[in-house]
Formats: sequence, C-alpha cells, structure tokens
Amino acid sequence: MTARPPLVLDPRDTVAILPERTAGGLDPLGLGKPLIQPLPAGHKIARIDHATGDRVFKFGQIIGTASQAIRAGEHVHSHNLAFSSHDETYVIGADLEIARAAIPQIEPRAFMGYRRGNGQIGTRNYIALCATVNCSATVVRKAAQELESSGLLDAYPNVDGIVAFGHGTGCGMDSDGLGAQVLQRVLWGHATHPNVGAAVFVGLGCEVMQVGRMKAQFGTDHADRFHGLTIQETGGTRATIDRIKKMVTDLLPEVNAIQRSSCPASALKVALQCGGSDGFSGITANPALGIASDLLVGLGASAILSETPEIYGAEQLLLRRAANTDTAEKLIAQIRWWEHYTRINHGSLDNNPSPGNKAGGLTTILEKSLGAVAKAGSTPLAAVYDYGEQVTEPGFVFMDTPGYDPVSATGQIAGGAQIVVFTTGRGSAFGSKPAPTLKLATTTSLYRAMPEDMDLDCGDVLSGDATLEEKGAEILECILAAASGRKTKSEALGLGDNEFVPWQIGATM
Amino acid sequence: MTARPPLVLDPRDTVAILPERTAGGLDPLGLGKPLIQPLPAGHKIARIDHATGDRVFKFGQIIGTASQAIRAGEHVHSHNLAFSSHDETYVIGADLEIARAAIPQIEPRAFMGYRRGNGQIGTRNYIALCATVNCSATVVRKAAQELESSGLLDAYPNVDGIVAFGHGTGCGMDSDGLGAQVLQRVLWGHATHPNVGAAVFVGLGCEVMQVGRMKAQFGTDHADRFHGLTIQETGGTRATIDRIKKMVTDLLPEVNAIQRSSCPASALKVALQCGGSDGFSGITANPALGIASDLLVGLGASAILSETPEIYGAEQLLLRRAANTDTAEKLIAQIRWWEHYTRINHGSLDNNPSPGNKAGGLTTILEKSLGAVAKAGSTPLAAVYDYGEQVTEPGFVFMDTPGYDPVSATGQIAGGAQIVVFTTGRGSAFGSKPAPTLKLATTTSLYRAMPEDMDLDCGDVLSGDATLEEKGAEILECILAAASGRKTKSEALGLGDNEFVPWQIGATM
Ligand SMILES: [Ca+2]
Ligand SMILES: [Ca+2]
Ligand SMILES: [Ca+2]
Ligand SMILES: [Ca+2]
Ligand SMILES: [Ca+2]
Repeated sequence: MTARPPLVLDPRDTVAILPERTAGGLDPLGLGKPLIQPLPAGHKIARIDHATGDRVFKFGQIIGTASQAIRAGEHVHSHNLAFSSHDETYVIGADLEIARAAIPQIEPRAFMGYRRGNGQIGTRNYIALCATVNCSATVVRKAAQELESSGLLDAYPNVDGIVAFGHGTGCGMDSDGLGAQVLQRVLWGHATHPNVGAAVFVGLGCEVMQVGRMKAQFGTDHADRFHGLTIQETGGTRATIDRIKKMVTDLLPEVNAIQRSSCPASALKVALQCGGSDGFSGITANPALGIASDLLVGLGASAILSETPEIYGAEQLLLRRAANTDTAEKLIAQIRWWEHYTRINHGSLDNNPSPGNKAGGLTTILEKSLGAVAKAGSTPLAAVYDYGEQVTEPGFVFMDTPGYDPVSATGQIAGGAQIVVFTTGRGSAFGSKPAPTLKLATTTSLYRAMPEDMDLDCGDVLSGDATLEEKGAEILECILAAASGRKTKSEALGLGDNEFVPWQIGATM
Repeated sequence: MTARPPLVLDPRDTVAILPERTAGGLDPLGLGKPLIQPLPAGHKIARIDHATGDRVFKFGQIIGTASQAIRAGEHVHSHNLAFSSHDETYVIGADLEIARAAIPQIEPRAFMGYRRGNGQIGTRNYIALCATVNCSATVVRKAAQELESSGLLDAYPNVDGIVAFGHGTGCGMDSDGLGAQVLQRVLWGHATHPNVGAAVFVGLGCEVMQVGRMKAQFGTDHADRFHGLTIQETGGTRATIDRIKKMVTDLLPEVNAIQRSSCPASALKVALQCGGSDGFSGITANPALGIASDLLVGLGASAILSETPEIYGAEQLLLRRAANTDTAEKLIAQIRWWEHYTRINHGSLDNNPSPGNKAGGLTTILEKSLGAVAKAGSTPLAAVYDYGEQVTEPGFVFMDTPGYDPVSATGQIAGGAQIVVFTTGRGSAFGSKPAPTLKLATTTSLYRAMPEDMDLDCGDVLSGDATLEEKGAEILECILAAASGRKTKSEALGLGDNEFVPWQIGATM
C-alpha cells in the first residue's frame, strides 16, 4: 500500500494535511525535509518555507503566524505556529471582491419540486400538527401515529406524511420575553413551511403561547393553510385526537392534489450543519460541502450557515466578506449577545482547541472555527438572520443558532430551509421534518460503521479517490435528487419526529 | 333552586367564599347585612365585624388587614383589604407546635405495591428506556413503540409497559453546569425509580451527558438494574433499535417475576401539583388535597409540594412551620436563587394578583399563593429538596421546581414520587410515567366537560354535597387505589410518554 498524498484544501494554502498516520523519516511532500518523528493523521506539514512572522494559510485563510522559521516539509503545530487569541479587528467588506469572484458562473439547474399557490416551492408535502405547548404534545403525536398506521394515507401518494411537532415548552415562560418570540417564530415557520401543505395548531387552551397572537403578529397570508383547536374546548384528550384525525382526513384530498413539477434550483434554501465532529470534519466533508455551497450560490440558491458558538473566533473572516454594513453589524450584535448569554449562565464561548483537538492536529482557535466555517464556501455573506427568522436572500447567509444539532436545525428549518446537509465524524442519527436531512460521513470507516444512516462518504477525499471539487459536485447532485423526492437515509428510517427542538431561552417558571 | 351556602375553608377564617354568583340584596350568611351589589362566584364576604387594622383570615391564614371597618356580611376585596406587599419577615419555626398538632392520629393503612429487593416500594412496574441526549430520542421511542405493539408484553402481565424517556437536551451544554447536574439527577432518578424494574440507557456516544459519569457520581447500588449502549458503537439507528428490543426481551421474564403484595402506606411519596388553575382551585380541589396531604403525613408517607414561583409570597408561612433551621435556610436559599434566575433572564416572580385574578375574587398576592400552598395541608415542613433530588424524609416536604406542569412533575418523579395528584380548574390533559397522575377537577362543570381526563370531581364541595373533610378522605382512597394498581384516567388514555420534560437551566450552546 503506497502512502496517500497530503491534502491541499485550497490552492492558497501554505500547509498540507496528512491523510493518515505517517512514519518518521518519510518526506510526504518530497521536499527534501523528512519528518523527524511520526505524525498522526490530520496534522499539518509546510508546503513552503516560512520566516518568523510569516502568515500560515489553511482553508485559503490565515490560521496564524510562524513563531519561528518553518522549513518546507516540516511539521506545523503549537511549537512553531501562534495566533494572537481571538481577533476582534473587524474590517467589514475587506474581502468582498475576492468573495464575489468566488461565485461560480454556471448554467441554471432545476429540480422536481412542489410549487404552491402562494409562490413557495417545497421539496416535500406534509400535513403538520403543531403543538403550541407540551400539554398538547401527546394528542398531536397520537393523532399522527393513528393516522400514519391506519392505511388512510395509501390513497394519497403525493402526501409525504402527517408530522407532529411536539415539544417541551410553550408555558411557564415570560409571555413577552425572547423565549416566547423564538417559539412563535419556530411554530409559525413550521406551519407555513414550503414543505407543508396544511397545518393544524393544537393547544391546551390556557397556555402562554396563543395562536391568535401569532396570527396578529405574522399576518394572515397563510390563513387558509392552517387550522386550530384546543383540548379544553374540545372535551379532553380522546375527543381532541378524534377531532384532529377528522380535520386531517378532510384536508388530505386538497393537500394531495399538488404534483411535483420542474422548479429552478434558485428556489432552494439549504441548511448547513455539523455534529459529532472529528479531526477530519474540517478536511473532508466540510470543505467538500463548502464547494457545494458555492455551487448553490452560483445557481441563485441560499446556503445557510449557523451554529454561532462554533464560528466564534472566525467571525472577523465572515465580516471581511459581508455584502454590506447592516449585515455585518447584525452579526457583530449576535456575537455580543452570545458573550452576554453565556456569561450570565456561567458558560464560556472561548473554547480554545482542547487537548483532544490538539492531538488531532488543530493548533489555533481560528483553525478550529474555520473547519466549521468551511461548510459555507467562499462567497459573500449576503445576509444575517436571527434564530428561526424567514430567510429571503439568495447567496451565502448566516442564521444565529446554538451549535446543538436539533436546536440549530429546527431554527434553520423554521427559516424556510427545504433541505439540511449535515456532516459528521463521530456519527449521528439525526433526521428532520418537514425538511429532510442528508448526512455526510467525514471518513470511509464511519460510512461503513453506520451504513443505514450515512448518505454519502466523504472519506474518499482522504484516500485520493476523489478531489474536493468532485466531492462538492457530487454533494450538489445529492441535494438536487433529495429535493426532487429521493428519500434520504434518515427518512427511510423514519427519523425527524423527535428532533424538533425549539431553542429555549430564558427562565422556565 | 335554593342558594348554596358560602364556603368556610377553615374554622379560623373570618371570611367565607361565595360558591356561585349572588344577587345584590341577598344576605348569604344571614347576618343582617345584605349585599349592596351582585358578586361573582369566588368572592369573599366577612363572617364577623372587623375594625380597621384587624387581621383577615382565609385558609386559616392571615391574608391581609382591614384597611377600613368591615361589617359582618360585607364584601371583602381591594377596597377594604390591604396587604403590605411581600412579607420577608422570616420567623423560623414560630408555628411548629400548631403544625405538629395538625398531624392526624390515625390507624396505619396499606396498599398493594411492588416490594423490590433493595427495599424500594413501587406502585407500577415499568421497563424504562432512558435517552441521555436528544440524538437517541428516536431510537428509544421507536424501540418502545415496536415492543408495545408487538404483542410480546401479553405474556408478562406484571409489567406495566416499556416507557421511553426522550427529551430535547443532553448536549450543547456546560458539562459542569447546573443544567447538566439537574439532567443527571433526573435521568438517574427515573432509571432507579421504585416504579421501574429495569432500565436501559441509550446515548449517541459523543454527547456531554455520559452514563459512566453518572455511575461514578451516584454509586452502583442499582447497577444490576440498568444497562447501556450507544448508537455510534452499535452501528446506527436500526441496529440500535434492534439491540434495545433484544435487551428488553431478555429482561422481561425477570422484571415480570415480581408480584404485588401488601405494603405500608408510609412507603408512599405523593407529588402535589396544580395546573390550569382557576378561581376555584384554592377553594375546592387544593384545600381538599391539603386534607389528604395531612392524612398521608399522619400515615407516615411523604407529601411533596413544589412550584416555587407559585408559593412565592407565602414562603414565610412555610418557614413558620419549618421543622428545623437547616430546612428553613435551604428554602430561603432557593427563593433567593429564583430571584436571581428570573432577574438575569429579564423575568419576574412578583406576580401580584392580575386583573383576571382580582375579577375572580383574589385580593392579595398572599391569598393567591396560599391557594396553591393549600394543597400541602397544615403539618410541619419536614425537609426541603432541590429539583430531582431523592426524597427521603416522611411528612410534608418541599421540592424546588418551576410551576410549569411537565417540568415540575418530572422533578418530583425523579425524586421518587410514586403517585402524582394534580388539581386543575381550566382543564389539563397531563399524565406521567413511571408514576401515574390522578387529576382532580375544581368544578363539576370541568369534570363533565373532560370526563375521560378527570379522575375526581371536587366541585361537590361548592354545591354543599361534600365537605372538604369528606373530599380529602375520598382523595386518600383514590391515591391508595391507584397505588394498588387501579388505572388512572391518564393511564387509560396512554399519556405520560411526552410529558417527561427535564428542567433546562443555563445556556444551550
Ligand atoms: Ca457543528
Ligand atoms: Ca457540534
Ligand atoms: Ca451542530
Ligand atoms: Ca400551579
Ligand atoms: Ca403547575
């Protein structure tokens, strides 16, 4: 078995990544400077000579400066690479022209979607049962289960299913607080999602979260698409389940009437996610997904980066490619909010590379965050959204969310994402509704260990069997196929009912 | 139809409560002072003359002082009753002797429970599937559903079911923070609950919440009763569901081997709850439950009051009957913590009677909180617990929880409660596992509106068909019957799988 060649993530990079454990005495880049000790997979070696103070590039970005001279071929890590902690020198728009040049000029693409009367374009066609409060979680879940197992849906082939959105909150909360606003946006975003043909809101009756208030706040554009009832007015648990089933039964013919038709790829909003990251996330699946993101942007679609705690430390790079000042200022305000939120809760965002990260080859906080940001490619930051806010801008956009997978994806889907693409290294069993999730494995060993969960193997980037460019193009084809109705692995397993987790902010009282 | 007589909640009371809307000109107490205007149900009239400054009693407690002279028979409300806001004059143990005298001297009682090898006594016999993180919520729920619908359990009549505890948290959290500690206590408390014969912990593998850490913290007393696996090690979603089903199948004969036998009522820990309160909660169901609580205390059982935000303003009364200084100081520390928790989250505990409360006849914050505290009867405050902490003391005890029903009951059950008794006025569809919930309606109209959800009608206290003492005795009989295996209404409806909601404290990152 011949050694795999080191991986160059971007032509501008001054380091390359070892794809596998490499013995001392070997010279993987053939630069005449053999390694003086064995190195684990994921570590960096220099492609060129660096003088003290020279900038070191990975992902096409600066990850730090040489703290001593580094010869081409040498190991690059904490002993010779330094970074002056978290850089808060924000230069808004400095790299905007470079970012604009990174948008690929490509031919339009299409997928087979559901074009709705109000102009929305869906990739799935669900009936949604939305609980306003935990007190109605059981009735929506039981109604959905009874409908799904009744055989009734067999007569409606264009309906993907009845999905129940139950959750743990909706009362015992400040009715005017941020937590209530966030939950409202999430419920409304799911009920009016392009992948939802009709929605039924179900409450207990006396809870803080009230449907009437949501209608008043968000308007009645979608009023014909949703319906509501409460357990207290309907006569209890069993009567409410029966009423929901009757309402859904009446809605099915109308929801089934829509057919897939050719829709422009520009209608897609694709949520970018990672969870259970490993040392290869930033080397294989994330940069490959970044290339797919650039292609989506070239097609006029939206690619939604999120997980604010995981981009912390790299926000100044996003700001350098911000399309305008308002967008940049919104991101800065979100970063400041997170510093406050974690401080009052005795947490910290300053998650410098941990011993485990360092053993895996990550040297600086910037390098770590860049591995996460790599999912978002290289194009301009077109817009910044709050959690669950409706995404309306094409291009690469950012939505403020926690990093925790179900909470983050729930916000992105509430914002209108019709597809989620999720990279994982340790392995994940995530799935979502009404927007399906595609899962990308960072290594072939993970792909083989969880074959029924992983949609795509990005480990062949490491083995040299695929370039990042080829992998990015393959991911785009997977996205278009899933958008056209091909079931993802997590859909085939029936995941997505328990992964609806609205972000809880504030006190539970 | 003759007018129903006004209700006297305690012999010490200087006011009586109108059980129904009463016309002006009537003199409901026959004291020669007819009402000058009609009054809605729930309002107070004076039983005796009060001079300015005289103390006014309801629930056997001071609810305020007369701000002007009040003649016997007159309406008592904001115009003539005042309270000097939130009383923080804490006199620890001042009423302890009176509280001790309130413990009924009664004959021991028994119920048919499950006596376990380690001395625990259960009222149900479940196999629990505990998700350490949302990432494993789907696999535990699908495994439980597939097992429940397989017919396999028919051969094991002593097993009440397979219950899946899925939730929205377990990662994206500070691993050393209060939120992680609380979740650990809740998961451990459910897995080792007296109503659980065996438990299986299921994780993804890389989450913050780790079973090994729980075992190290809580010890291995229950090690033979639970088992664990992760999705990442087991090969993904489908393989993990199959593995869980195999483990449960192997556990069933052993868990089924236990039989109900006569157990002392002193082994019971009964959780007190209210949700969807109305103007009658503090008049019918809560004081009747308070009498049942006193009877339980007389039998040597534990009665667990909770919902800290709803006792706020009445804590000084609990402190007057605290059994010792440590107990009192723990409650004071919890009150201070809540003031901090709501302040940093821009909320407030100072929920003085709202316009709706006032229209319902509640005059002061103390009167409002006393309505909630009435559930706990009159005996000494024997101990104070943190959320989900193991309850070990007999008698009336307090556990710090939010007021929000599912979160509060989840903490009480984690603490070892084998039965929940839940009063409701607006109506509730709550149910719980592994400890069943009995629901008490405050009015006959609610009892009739939700007949399949309500276990007991406390409205007959209002109509004069039952005294509070009779109702309290009836509630005790219901508790003993449910403890012996009689299904509650919520169990018959299959509730309790979605109402497991651990309190989330701290930042989601
Ligand atoms: Ca991530
Ligand atoms: Ca993550
Ligand atoms: Ca994530
Ligand atoms: Ca309450
Ligand atoms: Ca409650």
